[in-house]
Amino acid sequence: MATLGFVEYADASPEVRAVYDDIMTTRKTDWINNFWKALAHDPVTLRRTWQSIKEIMAPGALDALTKEMVYLAVSATNQCPYCIASHTVSARKAGMTDPMFAELMAVVGMANETNRLSSGYQVEIDERFKT
Amino acid sequence: MATLGFVEYADASPEVRAVYDDIMTTRKTDWINNFWKALAHDPVTLRRTWQSIKEIMAPGALDALTKEMVYLAVSATNQCPYCIASHTVSARKAGMTDPMFAELMAVVGMANETNRLSSGYQVEIDERFKT
Amino acid sequence: MATLGFVEYADASPEVRAVYDDIMTTRKTDWINNFWKALAHDPVTLRRTWQSIKEIMAPGALDALTKEMVYLAVSATNQCPYCIASHTVSARKAGMTDPMFAELMAVVGMANETNRLSSGYQVEIDERFKT
Amino acid sequence: MATLGFVEYADASPEVRAVYDDIMTTRKTDWINNFWKALAHDPVTLRRTWQSIKEIMAPGALDALTKEMVYLAVSATNQCPYCIASHTVSARKAGMTDPMFAELMAVVGMANETNRLSSGYQVEIDERFKT
Amino acid sequence: MATLGFVEYADASPEVRAVYDDIMTTRKTDWINNFWKALAHDPVTLRRTWQSIKEIMAPGALDALTKEMVYLAVSATNQCPYCIASHTVSARKAGMTDPMFAELMAVVGMANETNRLSSGYQVEIDERFKT
Amino acid sequence: MATLGFVEYADASPEVRAVYDDIMTTRKTDWINNFWKALAHDPVTLRRTWQSIKEIMAPGALDALTKEMVYLAVSATNQCPYCIASHTVSARKAGMTDPMFAELMAVVGMANETNRLSSGYQVEIDERFKT
Repeated sequence: MATLGFVEYADASPEVRAVYDDIMTTRKTDWINNFWKALAHDPVTLRRTWQSIKEIMAPGALDALTKEMVYLAVSATNQCPYCIASHTVSARKAGMTDPMFAELMAVVGMANETNRLSSGYQVEIDERFKT
Repeated sequence: MATLGFVEYADASPEVRAVYDDIMTTRKTDWINNFWKALAHDPVTLRRTWQSIKEIMAPGALDALTKEMVYLAVSATNQCPYCIASHTVSARKAGMTDPMFAELMAVVGMANETNRLSSGYQVEIDERFKT
Repeated sequence: MATLGFVEYADASPEVRAVYDDIMTTRKTDWINNFWKALAHDPVTLRRTWQSIKEIMAPGALDALTKEMVYLAVSATNQCPYCIASHTVSARKAGMTDPMFAELMAVVGMANETNRLSSGYQVEIDERFKT
Repeated sequence: MATLGFVEYADASPEVRAVYDDIMTTRKTDWINNFWKALAHDPVTLRRTWQSIKEIMAPGALDALTKEMVYLAVSATNQCPYCIASHTVSARKAGMTDPMFAELMAVVGMANETNRLSSGYQVEIDERFKT
Repeated sequence: MATLGFVEYADASPEVRAVYDDIMTTRKTDWINNFWKALAHDPVTLRRTWQSIKEIMAPGALDALTKEMVYLAVSATNQCPYCIASHTVSARKAGMTDPMFAELMAVVGMANETNRLSSGYQVEIDERFKT
Repeated sequence: MATLGFVEYADASPEVRAVYDDIMTTRKTDWINNFWKALAHDPVTLRRTWQSIKEIMAPGALDALTKEMVYLAVSATNQCPYCIASHTVSARKAGMTDPMFAELMAVVGMANETNRLSSGYQVEIDERFKT
């Protein structure tokens, strides 16, 4: 089910439990999804990854919904089944409707197409686009 | 500069000019960037690609700025230099500020990291995430 | 189970059996995993792929464990489920411990993140880094 | 220009020269492109890579032109600038016309789009498609 | 089974049915595969994607079999399970034999290898390859 | 040169200077490479990314050289020019010799090849490989 198995709350060290508690509090939920339970075999990576995600996904110049949709767009581009499944759920929770999902996928599909067309045609960057 | 070279407006067929005109009108600009001038050697692909982008990138359930940022997020994930350069410019034109760009990149980076962690750890999809 | 099905030892031609035998001898094992049984429909590719892997994965300037971990790092980056599963097993067999696996994944995740940050920010290569 | 620099014919060992000679004879050309001159720092990899390419790219069930176009399609999907540049030249040499190139890129673009749509929508494989 | 579920023919709107009918007529088949039934929740994307594929995959400068094999080559490079499964079936229907499939995969594998070798060795593009 | 330009030490805020100082101390060097100077427009991301890399790349269950080579292997797989250039330099600094580099690239190339072969052939994961 995962390379190192899952660390359940009941079996977790205080250090891991502290992260689990913060995940549940921050997300206003009462369970921990498999990703974190797999990472928990490495408490240092668990803590760092959670702290980074918590910091990055908090509303700032971009709102939480936009961030979740970008996360889903990247996951669909990389074709990561776990990430697509989990971030589709979190994007919906943040307010993504069916029509928003459909438009998001349309943009993702199109960008993946034109990325290859511009590379395949060896298109040189316009002077005006250079930073 | 491009596999088949560029088709400049002055040398373009009426069919290609019609697409160029529509691009400039839709984008409220007076020039055509290299991507379209490279594609123009294949007028059928030029027309279809432009019609698709025009339809997909128009504001709908998602606004134009969000769509441009998603396009940039995909291009950064695929590491397409031309697409990153051109869509950074279009996202800015649509209203992306420096702090929004920085947060966008932070989300893109994080998603690319956790995509590999979940795959590498062989994390099974939670029942609750299954569609 | 595989596009062309699997070629079992009992049904294999002498040419395929010779490769299977060499795989089992080299790996000190008594079974053949599905990858080779699927490739065996194309004995030329089977032989070439096995010879290449045998040559590349033999200890040289890098030891066998390092090579197996690099193989796993690439497979996690490409998110190839079969390759992650099989090379996790071979890396463990070569000596990878749980803490080594966890650190390996941390590096893989981080590299995937900064690869996109440097591309997305359009960072120019430093003169000192040019070959 | 390359991590380990280039090995020119005049400076090459007999082992490397033998590969260079075979490349020029097989390709009916009188020069060696940079890829091989970079690999030549590792004569074992040089020889193995050339032997593999020579074997794989020879006409068989698929003709040489089809193989070159597939090589270009993969390189455009991976967005590898060197490989796109070199395999566009070899595909042309094998008979790829401008309209063939344009249709090839259209297929590559479309496949990259629908690959993400099917992943993003989490489409389950049809029973009829299962092997 | 899919993020938004499947739209079956019996439940489809006239607009969606028109696309389904055209797919079945064009492909000379009597069923619709899951990809289209998932996309059908977004009739605009369904129609545009089908029209694009119909136009791109029709025989032109490249025949239908070559196009299907290129589609499969891209899908294998991107490691998209759904697309590999469905396009293996369509390539076979278009005439791909087992030896053709095996040679196709050999080219795909080799191209993915040398793409990384040329990038990893930082090989500069030869002047003769520049467009 | 970078989307938001570079933040030079002389122009940096105390927060950014503190990170620059720590980078130079940790790496025993007297200059800052472009990646950090580009990220510095977003001091929060600068700090988090540096702290993560510092933590991840420190010797632990894996030594520093192995970690640098894995970083380079991932960067070559993703074909990120900046990352390949910079991590080739850091891997050399950590002790990577030319023969080690050559073997590393051979493994990276091979893994990228077999990743696609196993996906393209739709090889099912062996029971023995399941976690």
